Amino acid sequence: MIGEIINVGTELLMGDTVNSNAQYIGKELSRIGVSVYFHTTVGDNQGRLESVLQQAVTRSDLIILTGGLGPTQDDLTKETLTRFLGLELILHEESLEKIRTMFARLGSIMSQNNVKQALIPEGAIVLENNHGTAPGILLEREGNLFILLPGPPREMIPMFREQCIPYLEEKNPQKFSSRYYKVSGLGESAVEDRLLDLIDGQSNPTIATYAKSGEVLVRVTGSGMNQEVTEELLDLMEKQILDRIGPWVYSREDEELHQTLAKALMKENITISLAESCTGGLLASQLTESPGISSVFHSGIVCYSNEAKMQYLGVKEETLFQYGAVSASCAREMLDGLLKNNKTRAAIATTGIAGPGGGSEEKPVGLVYIGVALDGKFEIVEARFSGNRHQIQVRSAAMAWNLLRKLLIGN
Amino acid sequence: MIGEIINVGTELLMGDTVNSNAQYIGKELSRIGVSVYFHTTVGDNQGRLESVLQQAVTRSDLIILTGGLGPTQDDLTKETLTRFLGLELILHEESLEKIRTMFARLGSIMSQNNVKQALIPEGAIVLENNHGTAPGILLEREGNLFILLPGPPREMIPMFREQCIPYLEEKNPQKFSSRYYKVSGLGESAVEDRLLDLIDGQSNPTIATYAKSGEVLVRVTGSGMNQEVTEELLDLMEKQILDRIGPWVYSREDEELHQTLAKALMKENITISLAESCTGGLLASQLTESPGISSVFHSGIVCYSNEAKMQYLGVKEETLFQYGAVSASCAREMLDGLLKNNKTRAAIATTGIAGPGGGSEEKPVGLVYIGVALDGKFEIVEARFSGNRHQIQVRSAAMAWNLLRKLLIGN
Repeated sequence: MIGEIINVGTELLMGDTVNSNAQYIGKELSRIGVSVYFHTTVGDNQGRLESVLQQAVTRSDLIILTGGLGPTQDDLTKETLTRFLGLELILHEESLEKIRTMFARLGSIMSQNNVKQALIPEGAIVLENNHGTAPGILLEREGNLFILLPGPPREMIPMFREQCIPYLEEKNPQKFSSRYYKVSGLGESAVEDRLLDLIDGQSNPTIATYAKSGEVLVRVTGSGMNQEVTEELLDLMEKQILDRIGPWVYSREDEELHQTLAKALMKENITISLAESCTGGLLASQLTESPGISSVFHSGIVCYSNEAKMQYLGVKEETLFQYGAVSASCAREMLDGLLKNNKTRAAIATTGIAGPGGGSEEKPVGLVYIGVALDGKFEIVEARFSGNRHQIQVRSAAMAWNLLRKLLIGN
Repeated sequence: MIGEIINVGTELLMGDTVNSNAQYIGKELSRIGVSVYFHTTVGDNQGRLESVLQQAVTRSDLIILTGGLGPTQDDLTKETLTRFLGLELILHEESLEKIRTMFARLGSIMSQNNVKQALIPEGAIVLENNHGTAPGILLEREGNLFILLPGPPREMIPMFREQCIPYLEEKNPQKFSSRYYKVSGLGESAVEDRLLDLIDGQSNPTIATYAKSGEVLVRVTGSGMNQEVTEELLDLMEKQILDRIGPWVYSREDEELHQTLAKALMKENITISLAESCTGGLLASQLTESPGISSVFHSGIVCYSNEAKMQYLGVKEETLFQYGAVSASCAREMLDGLLKNNKTRAAIATTGIAGPGGGSEEKPVGLVYIGVALDGKFEIVEARFSGNRHQIQVRSAAMAWNLLRKLLIGN
């Protein structure tokens, strides 16, 4: 099946918003084996949208449109498609009722404009919107399958995932399935090197790798006549992949390392405390993204100043004087301070030079010391990261989580 | 001038990468008054790219392509365009020399593939790449202006900003200029309401508003025969805008509130400390994005547990027992703890329920107490935010910075 994505919205053209919908849908379609050859972004303009549709029907089976389903005059995606296909719009009572109820619940009155959102092209399937007023639309017509989705990602994503993906999977006789391997502690080119023979020889399953914030994601997509065949193919490939990069794989979910860690800490009921100098609160902020983490997260000390290091963590003045704040000794004392002051089983300490200023020949920008501890075991690591301030902070955090992960595995 | 953007890359189609290039270029073009009607993303495929070019030349004056300028066989943007225009590729000695030097500096040998990157369509202007090996290309042909840029943003952005924008501005007889007003403490619809008469009556300058993480950006773009005329128009509009939303404008730069605050703290040499419960390190992390902040940032305490609140901030056990951790009293004591323990002029404390769990009828998810202090003055605010966990954290942080900003202004 060949698909294409059309995103409607002048704000996208003018760069007011990044087109994350195209990315999300592109990723999901490729995961279920739909080939995507084009993304087009077009403004809220009937004529230009029509020209894009004209072209899309000649080259794609599946045409997914996002945006322009709102209540205002500017929103004309549905109207344009309906006219383009020579259809009529019909009032969908159920949707109107839903919109009305939604307004009532918020204590406000539905405006007449919102009635427009309940108009549906004849013959279409209505996709329920559980996070907003605009229903989505699924419409098969002369060999093309059209899907219209609302623009806001928090409305679009659940609708697409819950209602469109199952529909598309059913249409496709081949059963596609993807597995994810998240890798930490090994760069993208190192991962590719180790998987080179598999990548070169790939046909089914296919293998894709990509890098993000110091981590690598490997995605393996297989297809077969039925689910069992597909899973067998994936099992076979998985074995070969884990033979080559198993020790660096921290998760089989498409999740970030700090999410995996947070889950593990909560599951094992391991309390944790953080002492952050160069990461400046990034570790704490990542950790507290996970709901429920308050059950194990004792405290985080962001100690940017020497006084804070001494006062809250008991780092010795002579250590700072003799070795400096960016030193293994300081990282060690920060770690000790956490373990001494807090009832905590796990601890992480970071100190380094994120730049752009503050570097010297002896201690260049990018030099970072990371200490991790778990149940009496501990480790202090010296690392040198390249990149700008933000990248150095992100890479330091990624390494800190990975060091803790290794201690957890060894536990 | 009508422009369109074509992004080449299979990784974009498959959603491995978000198309930030389209956003960046779209924003820049609209800033200098180029109307952008289409973005197209197409894979590394000669035939499909050619079909996109065919269409682009009939509808746009300016066609900007990104990606596919690399050294591999897959990279064929330049080759496809050259062939499409019936031109020849010629070796550009200067670029070849630059690529060779770049490899020598890295201590590695240039591969034969890289010679391909120094081939330039006849009649083209070469755009220097100071951050990678692929030169960009600027080519006028039969009424169309083509610009080819490398895909990686860190190569593309400086090349576009430094070499393409001045060229485009010169081509355009009208002089465009934009001003930015960053607004905090007022939602997007409230901003629009206050500017409604200006927005309704707009022609030149134009006004655009958009919202991001609890803040609103107002962009005003004017054009005139020369810079003075343009600036005069913008001055006039600025007066009217500030009359309506002046008190909420925290910056005239397109920067985030925490960046404005960090600059102000460093400039005035105001030391700051943070005590974060519900924001979980987000404030510290935002603050430490700014280089040089170590000169004023004393410490941040991420006190997720009650013990941490008592131990590091001196919050009283009876306060926690009587009012709970999510209370104005607790926020007040957290603030007092910072001011007592640290040599700090400014302080922020946050405590709240970010959810999704932990809420009750009396204290629902989204209830947040924020305390701010500066030089003896202080304020405790109760707020109720909607949204998911992440949004509640982000909105709490935005409000905290805005409260501190107001104290700073009053100072």
